[in-house]
Amino acid sequence: MSHRTLTIDLGTRSYPIFIGAGLLNHADLLRSYLRGSQVLIVSNDTVAPLYLEQLRAALSGYRVSQHIVPDGEQYKTIASWSAIIDQLLSERLARDSTLIALGGGVIGDLTGFAAATYQRGVAFLQIPTTLLAQVDSSVGGKTGINHPAGKNMIGAFHQPVAVIADTDTLATLPQRELAAGIAEVIKYGLIRDAEFFGWLETHADALLARQQTALITAIARSCQHKAEVVAADERESGQRALLNLGHTFGHAIETGAGYGTWLHGEAIASGMLIAAELSCQLGWLDRASVMRIAQLIKRCGLPLAAHANLAPERLLELMAVDKKVQAGTLRLVLLQAIGEAIITAAPAPEQIIASCARIGAEGF
Amino acid sequence: MSHRTLTIDLGTRSYPIFIGAGLLNHADLLRSYLRGSQVLIVSNDTVAPLYLEQLRAALSGYRVSQHIVPDGEQYKTIASWSAIIDQLLSERLARDSTLIALGGGVIGDLTGFAAATYQRGVAFLQIPTTLLAQVDSSVGGKTGINHPAGKNMIGAFHQPVAVIADTDTLATLPQRELAAGIAEVIKYGLIRDAEFFGWLETHADALLARQQTALITAIARSCQHKAEVVAADERESGQRALLNLGHTFGHAIETGAGYGTWLHGEAIASGMLIAAELSCQLGWLDRASVMRIAQLIKRCGLPLAAHANLAPERLLELMAVDKKVQAGTLRLVLLQAIGEAIITAAPAPEQIIASCARIGAEGF
Repeated sequence: MSHRTLTIDLGTRSYPIFIGAGLLNHADLLRSYLRGSQVLIVSNDTVAPLYLEQLRAALSGYRVSQHIVPDGEQYKTIASWSAIIDQLLSERLARDSTLIALGGGVIGDLTGFAAATYQRGVAFLQIPTTLLAQVDSSVGGKTGINHPAGKNMIGAFHQPVAVIADTDTLATLPQRELAAGIAEVIKYGLIRDAEFFGWLETHADALLARQQTALITAIARSCQHKAEVVAADERESGQRALLNLGHTFGHAIETGAGYGTWLHGEAIASGMLIAAELSCQLGWLDRASVMRIAQLIKRCGLPLAAHANLAPERLLELMAVDKKVQAGTLRLVLLQAIGEAIITAAPAPEQIIASCARIGAEGF
Repeated sequence: MSHRTLTIDLGTRSYPIFIGAGLLNHADLLRSYLRGSQVLIVSNDTVAPLYLEQLRAALSGYRVSQHIVPDGEQYKTIASWSAIIDQLLSERLARDSTLIALGGGVIGDLTGFAAATYQRGVAFLQIPTTLLAQVDSSVGGKTGINHPAGKNMIGAFHQPVAVIADTDTLATLPQRELAAGIAEVIKYGLIRDAEFFGWLETHADALLARQQTALITAIARSCQHKAEVVAADERESGQRALLNLGHTFGHAIETGAGYGTWLHGEAIASGMLIAAELSCQLGWLDRASVMRIAQLIKRCGLPLAAHANLAPERLLELMAVDKKVQAGTLRLVLLQAIGEAIITAAPAPEQIIASCARIGAEGF
């Protein structure tokens, strides 16, 4: 079984990312990252029926328990986290146990937060089964849960011992979720790799058709970007904030529309386009680049204006509670070119509203 | 205002500990450790009426909120932690805010865990107001809350930006809590400083009478020991575990008797004596040393046998769920001499039961 390997370089907390087909059957690889003899696999009721038995088969000889959460962002809550802690304690999992996240970003974030906080931190193995999780949320050590007041408001940094991305698991991913994952792939092109953005324009159809070579290339290149950014800036004080392109808008769209209306990647796609349009309004990005971005988003089946039914004033209000607000000052990631992002103080609310409205308008 | 300063050396996360009288009035010192412009002070309903206004006065110019928790270990819960998070969000405290813990170990652990998990970690200033917190829990980065299944089962490592120990706050500490703090001071002598143990035998009365010079010496020497151990081993894989002398027994005593029956330091005092007696039974520690330990504990008004009403079998059962159990193997900190501790696999249950019984017997 061939695969590609990258490393997130964080000193003593460095860890590898494996990307390839058939990795869930690779028992030796999986077992080499387990601590102790006890394992709790956390998954959801969509992914578990598809891949849980395969994973358990690879872990024979370990004491393996499982915890299945209903599928959906609305279950990324204090209650779900607390239920995992209850099970860890009732089954007396020791400090040297390993928690495995088998699923998408919600399962990864939730399991990671349980691993970060159980007995002040236990080992945590990421097995992302969605494209979004494979290229984004499983890499970088962010864990967390939602609060009624906002997404990911509760959480911790807790690096996994390894990330194992089996591209075979993408075969069962709904098309809409595949596209949502591509949104984050596009983001890497936009913030730091114009050539990769061009490659995506050429290979969008191949990705949407799930051609393995194209998928592995896109995932590996995305993870490479994320690895470089995270290694340079583990806790988001500087460069790491560039990864938030489209996210301040996107989170506000998700909250405003209600969790579950838009997938994270869909909201981010529209958020990136708002950021591009705003960059254009400010004279930093040319109109042709905005149109290239809009076209790629559209070709991937992603929404151009997920915020269309949301009053811009409400969007601004929701943005004000976003984590990226530093001491009352809203900061945004904007574009100077495709492949070149900057962090800046937010422009006047009127300009943000105008950009949202223009993208919401018919015929953009 | 003169004070002593120590440093916990943890690379980029190093932080100072200030020990002295009148530090709560030292506005410049306090303010130099605040991030951003927003502060939440967490305290309890015993400490807040005594010192909150004094602290707020030193923070003029900042946007200061407060969160008061009822006094007691029984409030170190998920519900209390969640209520702090709710307030942080409803008052929109940004990521660059600072949480201040004003109180004893419960307030420090609870506030620290809120700081560790709010938006994946915000700044955290420790102002311990009990001797126990000043010499132990405020130093070292352990934060956490309790679970019905055991103490500190939920938590994270999160280092404070500074620890400010104002010895004036000890003036209002009940005598029983002062003694409980001395138990942890004795621990440092037992595990790594025979000379300090001797100093404590000479100065026990001065400490109990709250003589400032004796207190500052005892706190500084205790913090110095903790600083050295923590710097060498931040996450308790090796040497740091020596700090748990008496704690595996002590936690079991606290849980078995019900939270609130014994103070932490009281349970630890008896736990250390059980460890000493067991060490003696195993032939590692001489009988005279055990008697010296018992005498010092007794002179400080601490219980020799807090476990007297607890069946030894129940104690063993409770020890089995303690965090120090590694993959099913119970490990204990025992003594080879006063000032010299070792970590070892637990001996046979019968030997532990015999040691508990001997200490529980009248006339020990």
